[in-house]
Amino acid sequence: MAGETRGKPIRCRAAVCWKAGEPLVMEEVMVAPPLAGEVRIRIICTSLCYSDITFWKLKDPPGCFPRILGHEAVGVVESVGENVSEVTEGDIVLPIFLPDCGECTDCRSEKSNLCSKFPFKVSPWMPRYESSRFTDLKGEVLYHFLFVSSFSEYTVVDIANITKIDPNIPPNRACLFSCGVSTGVGAAWKTANVEKGSTVAIFGLGAIGLAVAEGARLCGASRIIGVDLNPDKFEIGKKFGVTDFVNSGNCGNKPVKQVIMEMTDGGADYCFECVGAASLVHEAFACCRKGWGKTIVLGVDRPGSMLNFLSFDILHSGKSLMGSLYGGVKPKSDIPILLKRYMDKELDVDKFVTHEMRFEDINKAFDLLIQGKSLRCVLWMDK
Amino acid sequence: MAGETRGKPIRCRAAVCWKAGEPLVMEEVMVAPPLAGEVRIRIICTSLCYSDITFWKLKDPPGCFPRILGHEAVGVVESVGENVSEVTEGDIVLPIFLPDCGECTDCRSEKSNLCSKFPFKVSPWMPRYESSRFTDLKGEVLYHFLFVSSFSEYTVVDIANITKIDPNIPPNRACLFSCGVSTGVGAAWKTANVEKGSTVAIFGLGAIGLAVAEGARLCGASRIIGVDLNPDKFEIGKKFGVTDFVNSGNCGNKPVKQVIMEMTDGGADYCFECVGAASLVHEAFACCRKGWGKTIVLGVDRPGSMLNFLSFDILHSGKSLMGSLYGGVKPKSDIPILLKRYMDKELDVDKFVTHEMRFEDINKAFDLLIQGKSLRCVLWMDK
Repeated sequence: MAGETRGKPIRCRAAVCWKAGEPLVMEEVMVAPPLAGEVRIRIICTSLCYSDITFWKLKDPPGCFPRILGHEAVGVVESVGENVSEVTEGDIVLPIFLPDCGECTDCRSEKSNLCSKFPFKVSPWMPRYESSRFTDLKGEVLYHFLFVSSFSEYTVVDIANITKIDPNIPPNRACLFSCGVSTGVGAAWKTANVEKGSTVAIFGLGAIGLAVAEGARLCGASRIIGVDLNPDKFEIGKKFGVTDFVNSGNCGNKPVKQVIMEMTDGGADYCFECVGAASLVHEAFACCRKGWGKTIVLGVDRPGSMLNFLSFDILHSGKSLMGSLYGGVKPKSDIPILLKRYMDKELDVDKFVTHEMRFEDINKAFDLLIQGKSLRCVLWMDK
Repeated sequence: MAGETRGKPIRCRAAVCWKAGEPLVMEEVMVAPPLAGEVRIRIICTSLCYSDITFWKLKDPPGCFPRILGHEAVGVVESVGENVSEVTEGDIVLPIFLPDCGECTDCRSEKSNLCSKFPFKVSPWMPRYESSRFTDLKGEVLYHFLFVSSFSEYTVVDIANITKIDPNIPPNRACLFSCGVSTGVGAAWKTANVEKGSTVAIFGLGAIGLAVAEGARLCGASRIIGVDLNPDKFEIGKKFGVTDFVNSGNCGNKPVKQVIMEMTDGGADYCFECVGAASLVHEAFACCRKGWGKTIVLGVDRPGSMLNFLSFDILHSGKSLMGSLYGGVKPKSDIPILLKRYMDKELDVDKFVTHEMRFEDINKAFDLLIQGKSLRCVLWMDK
């Protein structure tokens, strides 16, 4: 019966990560009611993104344990805290790691997606208060992850991190827009603003790189070059609009730069680094068309890694270098646009879902992603 | 009488630089007729740009001697080589160091000003042939500079480096568009595309920085912050639309970044580095507004100097880094637009001309610029 859990702690199942790199443990946890400005949601399904793996492995800060990971999900509002009017019980929502307060200069500008009121960070807490809503059955605190923590049947999320969506969208597709698909498609659409007829090179054909390909295809790119070490990626890439493939481990005696320069008669209009390796950012920049090429950094390298450019190459090349967090997508205003394009069958996300399984099989989902056998595995909480 | 020198060598005066850093020597030289695709012009006046000083001082390559320096000028066509139909004898033209062949992919695109057919380089020769049109009276070769060599009464320039202009424009103003003014104004207009109401920070208030200010004012920037070590620059800057001044040598105990962050509530929308120091590019980038700030590199640092950024700062900041050669201006199509804006009294270049003198006093003009006492000194060949 609706409303009977409102205001009370909820006991439910969560997949807890007790220690870096160890299998998650499915157990009962307590989820406190939402404070002012917060929303408690029941997760319908969650999918697994490579950042979950990165933080699952991370022994040192910002890694911290015990933690409830997961940040790509869709849910239904169970109850809301004080001062929350944007959503109400029963609404279908995406929790999104990037806050969108709607009030600050950045959120009010069409040019930025980096909220100033609640800056993005990898915090163990809620964004508005330095505290957790999770405890184990002994009362010990469990840490949050990326303001979402979706590897739990219930979670508490700030209203700044909630986007209300059309309830008709299949949940096992909607959840992908919570992180990966939006990041990749957004990088092509919002950050790079890929033009019709242009040439795109994508370094790294994981889910993010393939989502960039999907975004570039939607923007009308006429040539989409995938660069990866794994030759199997080309067959996969074709389904996502990749037209050409460069095997960076097997270019004969030519460097990748030369291969792409020759293929494109001078370089790609847009180069996307989707792996998170500084050396690959340099390669992407080198493969960009002089005069107007843009290099977009999407991949997250290890903390402290540097990008080193010759001053001359910046000045004399006419190229731009830019970063793209969450693909430049503004959660509350752009996600509904992307979801409509999915419902209108323009944006195809079905092909990202390679596996679906029950929540309790989450460690299998981790294995598949680590072994490169899945793009997205959707975990259903109720099945 | 028109045409009587056509096809023959011309003997005329030039200011020859025999050795790095030594006073120029005013002497008679021979200027060969133009080859196919070339134009011989009589210089009306030339002004002095800081790049002339840089290359005058440069002992090692790309420095080379004996050389005829100068690259900011206006002249009249004396004769044309074969296959030149774009200009004819008597036309008033600007010689411009950046080629614009009109045929290659770059020249045909509105997005690039970096000709592929004749790439910009600091060559001792003509762009189309590896040869010189200058000899001394003993027949020894004198090298060219930046495809212009305007410190001579006559010079030969490739048609790709020639822009025909309205003959009604005063020559002591027109010559400034050949390099400095166009570079600075263009960087704000073409490269950055500064928006109405935006905030601009300019690092280095030399002629280029002041031209950026003029360009930013034309684009409707509401706040133009000048950053310089020399406090006298603020009074000068005011004439060019600079609204605020930061003395980077005297900010109390605050770093420049903090001062600008506080002044602008989070950073300038556009930051321009106009000195040519990698450290200043980093400072400019740090002073840029997260979410959408653009840092534009205009200054020419020494060969091999590096720009080093944290990968995290590129990815998470939403900022762009871009270079701007000749301000992104396309010589043949954009210069007429800038000149029209001058004639319509929108773009004010009069204030850049702090000195005018006779050509034979060119070493005095060098001294004034080196001592920071002039912005632009115009040298008249005929007075």
